[in-house]
Amino acid sequence: MFEKLKKSVCKANLELQKQKLVIYSWGNVSGIDRKTDVVAIKPSGIDYRDLTPDKIVLLDLKGNIIEGKLKPSSDTPTHLEIYKNFPQIGGVCHTHSTYATMWAQACRQIPPLGTTGADYFYGAVPVTKALTKSQIKKDYELNTGKVIVQRFKKIDPLIMPACLVACHGPFTWAATPEKAVENAVILENTAKLAFGTVLLNLDILPISKNLLDKHFFRKHGKNAYYGQKT
Amino acid sequence: MFEKLKKSVCKANLELQKQKLVIYSWGNVSGIDRKTDVVAIKPSGIDYRDLTPDKIVLLDLKGNIIEGKLKPSSDTPTHLEIYKNFPQIGGVCHTHSTYATMWAQACRQIPPLGTTGADYFYGAVPVTKALTKSQIKKDYELNTGKVIVQRFKKIDPLIMPACLVACHGPFTWAATPEKAVENAVILENTAKLAFGTVLLNLDILPISKNLLDKHFFRKHGKNAYYGQKT
Amino acid sequence: MFEKLKKSVCKANLELQKQKLVIYSWGNVSGIDRKTDVVAIKPSGIDYRDLTPDKIVLLDLKGNIIEGKLKPSSDTPTHLEIYKNFPQIGGVCHTHSTYATMWAQACRQIPPLGTTGADYFYGAVPVTKALTKSQIKKDYELNTGKVIVQRFKKIDPLIMPACLVACHGPFTWAATPEKAVENAVILENTAKLAFGTVLLNLDILPISKNLLDKHFFRKHGKNAYYGQKT
Amino acid sequence: MFEKLKKSVCKANLELQKQKLVIYSWGNVSGIDRKTDVVAIKPSGIDYRDLTPDKIVLLDLKGNIIEGKLKPSSDTPTHLEIYKNFPQIGGVCHTHSTYATMWAQACRQIPPLGTTGADYFYGAVPVTKALTKSQIKKDYELNTGKVIVQRFKKIDPLIMPACLVACHGPFTWAATPEKAVENAVILENTAKLAFGTVLLNLDILPISKNLLDKHFFRKHGKNAYYGQKT
Repeated sequence: MFEKLKKSVCKANLELQKQKLVIYSWGNVSGIDRKTDVVAIKPSGIDYRDLTPDKIVLLDLKGNIIEGKLKPSSDTPTHLEIYKNFPQIGGVCHTHSTYATMWAQACRQIPPLGTTGADYFYGAVPVTKALTKSQIKKDYELNTGKVIVQRFKKIDPLIMPACLVACHGPFTWAATPEKAVENAVILENTAKLAFGTVLLNLDILPISKNLLDKHFFRKHGKNAYYGQKT
Repeated sequence: MFEKLKKSVCKANLELQKQKLVIYSWGNVSGIDRKTDVVAIKPSGIDYRDLTPDKIVLLDLKGNIIEGKLKPSSDTPTHLEIYKNFPQIGGVCHTHSTYATMWAQACRQIPPLGTTGADYFYGAVPVTKALTKSQIKKDYELNTGKVIVQRFKKIDPLIMPACLVACHGPFTWAATPEKAVENAVILENTAKLAFGTVLLNLDILPISKNLLDKHFFRKHGKNAYYGQKT
Repeated sequence: MFEKLKKSVCKANLELQKQKLVIYSWGNVSGIDRKTDVVAIKPSGIDYRDLTPDKIVLLDLKGNIIEGKLKPSSDTPTHLEIYKNFPQIGGVCHTHSTYATMWAQACRQIPPLGTTGADYFYGAVPVTKALTKSQIKKDYELNTGKVIVQRFKKIDPLIMPACLVACHGPFTWAATPEKAVENAVILENTAKLAFGTVLLNLDILPISKNLLDKHFFRKHGKNAYYGQKT
Repeated sequence: MFEKLKKSVCKANLELQKQKLVIYSWGNVSGIDRKTDVVAIKPSGIDYRDLTPDKIVLLDLKGNIIEGKLKPSSDTPTHLEIYKNFPQIGGVCHTHSTYATMWAQACRQIPPLGTTGADYFYGAVPVTKALTKSQIKKDYELNTGKVIVQRFKKIDPLIMPACLVACHGPFTWAATPEKAVENAVILENTAKLAFGTVLLNLDILPISKNLLDKHFFRKHGKNAYYGQKT
């Protein structure tokens, strides 16, 4: 019944490795079927070489396992919290990709410094607050989701499909698991460009609202004109 | 009739990916037949794996489609503006290659710091002015071409075959589409060398006019002596 | 009798090259059989393409060769000193991997700046004192082991499985040779992330003890919950 | 008669590309037969994919072509000047490898900051003076050799087998063309390590003479003990 979802989530996880966003068993991608609210996610600590659709774990939004013999990713509560609060999205991706993680560890948002990022991220990629002692001690992974959601109180997750968790790394999301991974690739690229840009020009300012609007809405929304109409 | 041009433009676009100057469907290369002023360019948002010569779009210099079922690259008006103003050239290439884009985002020209760049770029690689609000709002891609052309009022595009568009990324050009891509590769290399050089020596000065002359004209013009006479 | 150990050590050495931690014949991995205190190590200056299990050298902890026609790695005395003082471990790995070596050459410990490193290294990765003139002149490789051991007087090598030798490079260890190499890969990743982090934020502080505890013990000890129970 | 020399020089040039020290037709390696003072060098501007031993050009030390239909590398006079003044060596290599070229463009010598470089380079890798206007205008490539030789007046080229030409890039040499390329690989690695080291610690001092002696003479001279006796 959820074969298609499991295949899609498996493929999206394998893409993490092909795109060199992860090493070893790091990183995880999930997807959700919004009709039934069934979430599919990578099992914990599994080598990507051994990952097949039948190993993908199915859960409900409360975290009860519906199908699968393996333990789900330890980051599952973070994914579920994101799905519960961002009903517009269908896939979530978490990596420790190099340049995005540098910004997360530096506790700095990634400012919009060029059109490359503006095509995908409508403004600065936000960084969360650091988790408090009690948020870390109990329900750590759930609270990681909560600080993301809190940071997005006034931000539409569809026009800013990425968040840096302070001292940790990036989460991205999208309508589908595959698109969530694509956003992770673009985020890493954007983070690398921004890293070099601030080293070359410490006083560089964000691009103008006009340029941001132009590039973001060239690719998104009803007036988009990039690509082929399909 | 324009089969050769379409093949050449297709091959040059595929080279972008082989040289790791682009990810996904980013970047675009075009070529022009100067006898007929027919321009061939990559279609918008097409995966490089699916790109074949028959998908290349043909246009006249006003932007009317002559042949092709797909929409041309959204950057087409920039290419056309460059061709109209730089009659000496036959190919244009646009990428968001990492180090060249860092300089573009930092709104800094790339100074001539060594002989590597001097073999190809006769001086500092210029950066355009930022586009104004009205230049962004209406005819954005056309105006991107216009700020490039404006920046080259006193520069010969044959001896400086590259320009950084502020907050955006590099454009390169040459006698042919293939050579325009080659210039994009060298520009990326030059930008990376310059990045490291200014980090190692904040006070570094451009190389002397003598050294610049020596290297550039070793490879260009009637007194060139690099390579085999053919 | 020690075929399994030799195979394991050979495989772990070959992994160094696959993971791009070494060039040419650089780097070395060893393993120990704790029942007999027999150590297996890579021969000195051998091309990885020519490395086979039968070329692995067997020694006792005093450095006497038990089996093997080739000279053992010149770093053998360092490995033996580590085995003698860290009875908990079964494998040692030495590389000059790029980012870890930058920190070692800068004589700076790698502070714990994010959860990526915290999953493996419980605190700052320490750097040794510089060797003294007499420590360099006589028994240099043995003394390299001694400064590592001295630096770990108050540190448990099982929760900090890595050390930077000042002006030199990293050593890592673990229960097995394969795991020692894995720690070398993670150390290099952690060193690269930390490099970018301090460039982006000169004033960045180490992560909290709470976050460090959470991540390290999520993967280690009796309350670990990462991965599949096996 | 010089088939072996031509093969060796051809192979060494192809190694430049395999080791990613060059792009396109950049870089060149030569070798010399000291009995006859015949020099073999790569032809100018030839694609590495087309390079075969029969295309290697043979010259005498005055630059007269002895054999070969193609023009020799434009850098030939630099190589010849080095051979004439460093009679101990048998191979010369020139690249624009990324990190070594950054140091050359920054006009900074590469200080000895760790044992990695100390195994091959006995001290700081020197940088030449900038060429004067007249040295550039006439006999530029010959004068490039002259400034290298001048910089080595008090340095033994066998213990310092590399030089950075200011505003240009690295030259390396050795007993054979293959070893000259190996030194170019190690120089690039050393330059990258030093780049990161000075960014991490602006005040870092060179390693001690004792450590330098230890590592260099561990691999060189009559008391060397690294590798297998052969």
